[in-house]
Amino acid sequence: MKRRDFIKTAGITSLATGATIAAPVVHAKTKIKWKMVTTWPKNFPGLGTGANNLARLITEMSGGRLNVKVYGSKELVPAFEVFDAVSRGTAQMGHGASYYWKGKSEAAQFFSAVPFGMNAQEMNAWLYHGEGLKLWTETYKPFGIIPAAAGNTGVQMAGWFNREINSIKDLQGLKMRIPGLGGEVLKRAGGTPLSIPGGEIFTSLKTGVIDATEWVGPYNDLAFGLHKAAKYYYYPGWHEPGTTLEALINEKAFNELPEDLQSIVTNACKIANQDMLAEYTARNQLALDTLVNKHKVDLRKLPDEVLNKLKILSEEVVSEIAAKDQLSGKVFKSFKKFSQQVKNWHDVSERVYLNVR
Amino acid sequence: MKRRDFIKTAGITSLATGATIAAPVVHAKTKIKWKMVTTWPKNFPGLGTGANNLARLITEMSGGRLNVKVYGSKELVPAFEVFDAVSRGTAQMGHGASYYWKGKSEAAQFFSAVPFGMNAQEMNAWLYHGEGLKLWTETYKPFGIIPAAAGNTGVQMAGWFNREINSIKDLQGLKMRIPGLGGEVLKRAGGTPLSIPGGEIFTSLKTGVIDATEWVGPYNDLAFGLHKAAKYYYYPGWHEPGTTLEALINEKAFNELPEDLQSIVTNACKIANQDMLAEYTARNQLALDTLVNKHKVDLRKLPDEVLNKLKILSEEVVSEIAAKDQLSGKVFKSFKKFSQQVKNWHDVSERVYLNVR
Repeated sequence: MKRRDFIKTAGITSLATGATIAAPVVHAKTKIKWKMVTTWPKNFPGLGTGANNLARLITEMSGGRLNVKVYGSKELVPAFEVFDAVSRGTAQMGHGASYYWKGKSEAAQFFSAVPFGMNAQEMNAWLYHGEGLKLWTETYKPFGIIPAAAGNTGVQMAGWFNREINSIKDLQGLKMRIPGLGGEVLKRAGGTPLSIPGGEIFTSLKTGVIDATEWVGPYNDLAFGLHKAAKYYYYPGWHEPGTTLEALINEKAFNELPEDLQSIVTNACKIANQDMLAEYTARNQLALDTLVNKHKVDLRKLPDEVLNKLKILSEEVVSEIAAKDQLSGKVFKSFKKFSQQVKNWHDVSERVYLNVR
Repeated sequence: MKRRDFIKTAGITSLATGATIAAPVVHAKTKIKWKMVTTWPKNFPGLGTGANNLARLITEMSGGRLNVKVYGSKELVPAFEVFDAVSRGTAQMGHGASYYWKGKSEAAQFFSAVPFGMNAQEMNAWLYHGEGLKLWTETYKPFGIIPAAAGNTGVQMAGWFNREINSIKDLQGLKMRIPGLGGEVLKRAGGTPLSIPGGEIFTSLKTGVIDATEWVGPYNDLAFGLHKAAKYYYYPGWHEPGTTLEALINEKAFNELPEDLQSIVTNACKIANQDMLAEYTARNQLALDTLVNKHKVDLRKLPDEVLNKLKILSEEVVSEIAAKDQLSGKVFKSFKKFSQQVKNWHDVSERVYLNVR
């Protein structure tokens, strides 16, 4: 207990500010220690620091009653074992992205980023005030994991290219680092998607092992120095239009918490969710400024013809997931219905406003 | 103390989930009661319920150690005395919108909604990862109030009109319910802005006392039945492109809290901020669907010529605030710089994505 807390609770019964104080209740303050394993390198800007922020919030709001220690990938378990580690209780929490776990459940992919899907604001609306979080909870339930949205990158960039993209034909034979659903879409456009760890991207691009790469956005891309390895920086990030990052919570550990700490854990994820988007929004704009004005990056929009074709291919790819199992079908249906309705609303609000301001 | 909490703290030293538990510390649990006065009618959809949500979050995360009771406008003080009530400590918290307090400080207007200013995502970036919240804190400091963002409506609608708006001339002589900076802009376009309380809008519009009104967006507008009183529903809400609602916290009351409760109060505001935007995003789209498809509302975009002229007039109005005092000048400078940079970023991300998806 801190000294000032002690003073506050040692018999003060009225405050100058008029707040009413009931008689103090003696409370046994249990200190609980949790581990949070993450899919990010320790302190990785934006994503890893977002996980740190989440842990800090829980520790701080609980007054240290629940102390969460963050582990970077490989510190306790490798990145792609985070889900299993939380499932079996090796760690009580995890931080990652749901599209990493399609091997566990195809439906998981709908809760991170869907090509030509919803942006950050729309994802939050679906998760918190639509069926999103309920369906996500159902998806992770068999694994003893409670999911929560815990970060968002906003619309990403299409990526760094050493080949001009003037038509859909220019994607043929393109060797590009692009994982997940976006990669599957590129494959159908005739390209070769590759999965390369973040740390190897720069060299692969510089030496011509790959022709192109997507990563995140200006903030993270500038830090990797990708502008020194590629000629063109294309937008928009059609494949990841508002990637939701996730917190994984071991269900049993969560259920053992008193109700106030449960509330703190759940709500800390919400704060981390908003904080990360605000951070990316602020930092991306500064980094873009540096890339364009200092490093003279050749910033280009993907031609509409290319985007239109990618959109058609994306719809094919996403629909096929829906057909894989009953749960995926249910999640797809909810996602698609909400996407269409929120698009109708944003077509007369956010979109038109951004166009006319 | 709840029974389950007691069991948890009565000597359990290891959990099946592997969480480490240190020896319990005896802690005197003081119960504090706060009042939150609001500028909204009690339980008003979106805004009033947003204030309820904030109070509930604080009570819940603190395990009842800090209990916040919400008062609708007039229950304890009238809407426009909320700021003074929190300033003098009659209530420890308030919920409103900063543009109501321009009589206290002209600079306050930059923290709610600025015509042709930033949308919700951009405001959050400026507040949390730019200078916004720091400057807002400075603005309220002389009044003993700590501000926090605690809700956002998203882009609003331009409003309900009984006159077609085909050119800027159609705004001449227009009697419109539109308060604040938007009203000042309308005045310069030749219209007559009026301030009419929410409850009187419908009748004023129906009886022709006014020709037009803005309110919030489809969710709130549908509830008011405004589609039964006007012919045309115009977009976009150029005057309120992402209105930030606020929490007001009495500084002295805040400083008397232990650190964990301070953290809970501050962070609960962040959650309420995100929750409200998600709620409006989800509910606006459903309400718009009802308005257009069930009530056959004539939905129209304001002509570009009109929007362009309103933009020029808005810049004049906003610049004039900046000239009123040193603090307003400082806030305007920060707001303007951030707006421009984030626009550059969103022009290649959010905006272009919403256009091509």
